[in-house]
Parts: sequence; C-alpha cells; structure tokens
Amino acid sequence: MSLAPTASSELRSWVSDHVNTALSDCLASHRSVLAAHADELGQFVDALEQFCQGGKFLRPQFVAVGALMATDNALTIFADTLPRLGAAVELVQAAALIHDDLIDHSDTRRGRPSVHCAAEAFHKEANLAGSAEDFGAATAVVLGDLALTIAEQLASTALSSHTDREQFNLLRTEVMAGQYLDVLNQAQGLRSPGSAAASATAVTRWKTVPYTVQRPLLIGATHAGAHQKVIDVLHELSVPLGTAFQLRDDLLGVFGDERETGKPASGDITEGKRTVLLAYAEERATDTERAQLRAAVGNPGAHDDAIARAREIFDSTGARALVESQIAELADDTRAILDERLAPLVPEQSVAVLDELMTKATGVARAD
Amino acid sequence: MSLAPTASSELRSWVSDHVNTALSDCLASHRSVLAAHADELGQFVDALEQFCQGGKFLRPQFVAVGALMATDNALTIFADTLPRLGAAVELVQAAALIHDDLIDHSDTRRGRPSVHCAAEAFHKEANLAGSAEDFGAATAVVLGDLALTIAEQLASTALSSHTDREQFNLLRTEVMAGQYLDVLNQAQGLRSPGSAAASATAVTRWKTVPYTVQRPLLIGATHAGAHQKVIDVLHELSVPLGTAFQLRDDLLGVFGDERETGKPASGDITEGKRTVLLAYAEERATDTERAQLRAAVGNPGAHDDAIARAREIFDSTGARALVESQIAELADDTRAILDERLAPLVPEQSVAVLDELMTKATGVARAD
Repeated sequence: MSLAPTASSELRSWVSDHVNTALSDCLASHRSVLAAHADELGQFVDALEQFCQGGKFLRPQFVAVGALMATDNALTIFADTLPRLGAAVELVQAAALIHDDLIDHSDTRRGRPSVHCAAEAFHKEANLAGSAEDFGAATAVVLGDLALTIAEQLASTALSSHTDREQFNLLRTEVMAGQYLDVLNQAQGLRSPGSAAASATAVTRWKTVPYTVQRPLLIGATHAGAHQKVIDVLHELSVPLGTAFQLRDDLLGVFGDERETGKPASGDITEGKRTVLLAYAEERATDTERAQLRAAVGNPGAHDDAIARAREIFDSTGARALVESQIAELADDTRAILDERLAPLVPEQSVAVLDELMTKATGVARAD
Repeated sequence: MSLAPTASSELRSWVSDHVNTALSDCLASHRSVLAAHADELGQFVDALEQFCQGGKFLRPQFVAVGALMATDNALTIFADTLPRLGAAVELVQAAALIHDDLIDHSDTRRGRPSVHCAAEAFHKEANLAGSAEDFGAATAVVLGDLALTIAEQLASTALSSHTDREQFNLLRTEVMAGQYLDVLNQAQGLRSPGSAAASATAVTRWKTVPYTVQRPLLIGATHAGAHQKVIDVLHELSVPLGTAFQLRDDLLGVFGDERETGKPASGDITEGKRTVLLAYAEERATDTERAQLRAAVGNPGAHDDAIARAREIFDSTGARALVESQIAELADDTRAILDERLAPLVPEQSVAVLDELMTKATGVARAD
C-alpha cells in the first residue's frame, strides 16, 4: 500500500484501516477498564464501537488531507499520531450524531436503529422498569457524553502543539454552538440572520463547515506543521467546500437513496429539517403548494403521497435546481481557490487527493 | 487572606474566589468568540455561567485539599493552575447535572428551574415553533455537551503531567460509566451486583465516589506532586468518604430542607431514585408499607400525604437509622485512615483542612 496516496480511494483505505485500528485500540482499552467494574459497562462501550463501525470516515480523511498539505509524506511521518487524531474526530462525530438523533427523533442511523431507539428496544425486550422511551433517551445522552470524553482523551495522546490543540478545541466548541443554532432555527427562533435561508446558512456555517471540513483539515495541517499561508488558504477554502457538502446532504435528505445514506429518504421531510432547500421551496411556493408542504414537513405521520407531493414541490418551485446550481458554484469557488492559491504552496500529489475528496463531499467532479 | 488555610471556611472562600474567577474568565473568553458568530450564542454561554453560579464548589475544594497533601503551600505555588483545575472539575459537574436533570425529569436545581425547564419556558414565552418540551431537552443536551468540552479545554491549560491528566480522564470516564449504571439501576436492569442495596452501592462506587471525592483529590495531589504513598492512601480514603457523602445526599433527598439543598425535599421520592435508603426500606417494609411506598416512589403526581407516609416508612422500617449508622461508620473508617495512615505523611495543617471538609461532606463531625 502506498504511503503517499495519489487517489482518494487509496487515502480512504489507508485512513479507514489505520483510523479503525486506532479507534478499536482506544475503545478496547476503555472497555477493559470499565468492564472490570461491571459487565454492563462492557456492553455500553460495545454499543459505541458498533455505532462507529458504520461511519464513512469522511472527517478523518480531511484530517489526513490536511496533513498532506504540509508534506506528501505526512501519512508516514505521522503514522503514529494522525490515525489517533482521525479517530478522535470520528468519535466527536459519533457523539454529535448520537445526541442529534435523540434531539431530532431520528429512528435510523447508518441503516440501523439509532442509539436511543436501540436502547428503548432493549428496555422492552428485557422487560425493565419505568418508561422505555426515557431509558432510550438517557442511554443516548450518556453514551454521547462518553464518546465525547473518549474523543478528547484520545486526541490528547496525539496533539503535539498549541496550534493543533486549538483547532481541535474549536472543532468541538463550534459544533456545539452550531448545534444550538440548529435547535433554535428548528424552533424558528434564530432571529439575527434575517431570513429562513440566511438562518439555515448560518447554521451550516457554524455547524457543518467547522466540524466536517474546516477543523479536520486544519487539525491535520497544523499537526504536520503546514506553513501559515497554507493554513490561511485551507481556512478560506473550507467555507465553500463545507457549505456545498451540507447543501448536497440536504438534497440527499430529500431525494437520496436510503441504501446509500443509511437514513430513510423521507427523514428530513418528516422531521421538518429547516434546510436552505426548504427555505427556497417555501419562498417560491404558491399558497396551495405551501399548504401541501406543511402537510408533510415536520409531520412524522405524513402519508407517502404527501411526502411524494412535497418532493414534487421541491422540484417544481425550482428550489432543488437552485440548490444544485449553488453547489456547482461553491464547488467552482473551492476549486478556484485550490488551483490559484493552494496548489502553488503544496505538494502536487496532495492537490489531487484533496480534489478527489472534494468530488466525494460535494458530488461535483472537476469539469474536464 | 491566608494562603495556607487552617480551616475549611478559609479554604472555601479561597477556592470560591479564585475558582470563580478562573471560571468567569474562561466563560467570558468563550462568550466573546461565540457571540461574534451570533447573538444567540452569547446568551447560550450566559445560561451556563448562570448555572455554575449556584454551585457549592465542593469538588474544587477537594482538588485544593488534594494539592495541600503535597505541600501546605500548594495554593500559593499553584496559584495559577489549581483554580483552573477546580473550575474544570466544576464544569464537568455542571455538565453532569444538566444532563442528569434532563434524564431524571427534575424541574428544579440550585433553587431555580433546571436547564431543560428554563429553556422550555423560554420557548413558550417567545412563542417558538414546535414542541417546547423537545426544545428544552435539546437545549439541555447541547449545553451539557458545551460544558463538558469547555471543562476539558480549560483543564488542558493547567494539567502539567501524565499523572494529573490521567486522574482528570478517569474522573470523566467514571462519572459517565456511573451515570449509565444509575440509568440501568433506575430501570432495575443492573443485575450483576445481586441485590437492590448492592446495586445502589455499585452506582455510588462508580459515580459519586470518583467524581465527587476521589478524582478531585487525586487531581490536586498529582498536580502538586504528592508522594505515591500519599496518592495511594487518598485513593483508599476516598471510597468510604465518597460513599458517606452519597448516603448523606440520599437522606437529604428525602428529609432535607429545600432551602439548603435547592431541590424539592420530595424530589428523590417522586423521581423514584433507587437509593440504598430505598432498598433498605423496601427490604424491611411489611406488605402494606410496601404498597404505600409504591404509591409515592416514582410517582410525580403523588399527593403530599402519600409522600409524608413514605417518609414515615423510611423512618419506621429503620432504613433511615441504618443509613445514618452506616454514614457514622464510614466517617469513622475515613478518619481512621486519615489519622493512622495519612497524617504521618502530610503537613499537619492539611490534615485539619481535610478533616473539616469531611465534616461538611458527610455531616459527621469528629467525635471529641
């Protein structure tokens, strides 16, 4: 296996092998300490490991690519620490998703029952006392907390300087700040941005961008000692890239294939997720269409035909096409920054790897 | 003000002044970063600061006393770092309480509405969209997460070695492990210990003991460079001390004064908290008494007379007296370890401070 991969598929397998090992080692060590206290705690750690196994490891890939921006030999030089940083970021993601699913009442994640639903089912099967729903919620709260603290403990064994620690700190603070803005936006209580589309964009800017793209890239780059100019360009580039990723995710949440996303295709509609896509559809809808949207959006009991009608409205209002064109524009912006400002500063092979990861994240390949 | 206090009241004021400042500085710095993104985030950090203001700062006091075990000049020598470690521990406690109250459906904390209740009220007042209860729960989940990550970020600026970091890591892992055992025990699904009283004791051992007494003491002691023999004795002493603290807390949860505890005196009864006290009462109750207990325990709608009757049964079965006698015995055990094994190894003044903190934590003063 090449240690200086030239394609994101090689990167992906390198990262997933090594990050997976770092993650397994870390969880096995916690498991052995905790299972010695009580058998039940071993099973609790197992639930976290199982949850992590279904991940796509996109964020660790950004960590690795960030490091490749400093040197194309980064995966060899930092073979000991980089997988641990990647695993730590993946554990923060696990914590965020476990809590997110609880907050959003999402029943499915990565093609399996979400943590609170699995715990609720366990409560019923074992015929335990009290409310199964409460037990599920409590388990998800505590397992997410455990994931978050294990993430930090693992990262602390690998962070090497004030600068990479600062990026890892910002990742966590920003994802939580963004999550609160998301909660507030769902309640239509996010007033400062001014419009529904601007509010959804603000949530993306402070939730998705930092924790999916920006901080993972910068953790890798600062860890590997990238030049400040490189850091600055990566910081800038990650905003259109992360925004395009979120817009693609919003489209997948309405039009995506359940087998690929691991979530029901109707999930974003019935959960009433207040995306940029939804804001555009509502702005452009006729009164009749708006009423039809309301029958499905945020209605967990919506019938299939109401959901299908909502999908049609996302199309017929032009909201879907507008989001697609914004994604294309953001991908162009990202590649312009990559070509004009980043490429002159970093190894050629690393540029190619980042470009392929961009395609994966946004669904937009480079135009020939 | 003396920097080598001889009484826990001096210690308390020293710790609360300095820890408070460290906490305020830390939160102010996060506030200024986040409020620049969105006004609403400033208010979010304010909610955390407000929550922390009502705390008794017992755990930071154990951190300081731990450090005094290394040198009676510890508060001066580590004037820069010790308050930050104390504040970090207090923030972990804030995270645990915010999530705990959500899990336990507790409406009141520190004499004010708990975080999820306050957020629920805000949702109603601002006439926001969706379920106010869900908004309250989501806010509490995310604010607890923020408290946890801020705790870690603050601690990282002060931890000086592998050994104090290990203690801080164990504090967080153990409180979450203990919290899960608590959740499982509440559902009567904690099977490994064998009896209700043994299960409640296991929860105490892995939740209260580590995060209230043991790890705070050992964070302070390792940070200040205490001798390994001192560490070992503190480790051992904290088990009876932390257990006695929890048993006292259980008594206060049933018989305590609302003005002192900041929680309704009936809270533990109506929440159905599965304490050692409850296990003893159930073991010793007649069938009639057991039925009367069931009418109040775990019943949020229980009438005052049913609650009063439950209190009588805790008394008449001898459960209360048994718990009191166990507290006395544990306090004796703690002081025997203090006198015979710790005192010969540590500064005389420090022994006196720890002794007074023991009185505060257990409600049992040293016999003359």
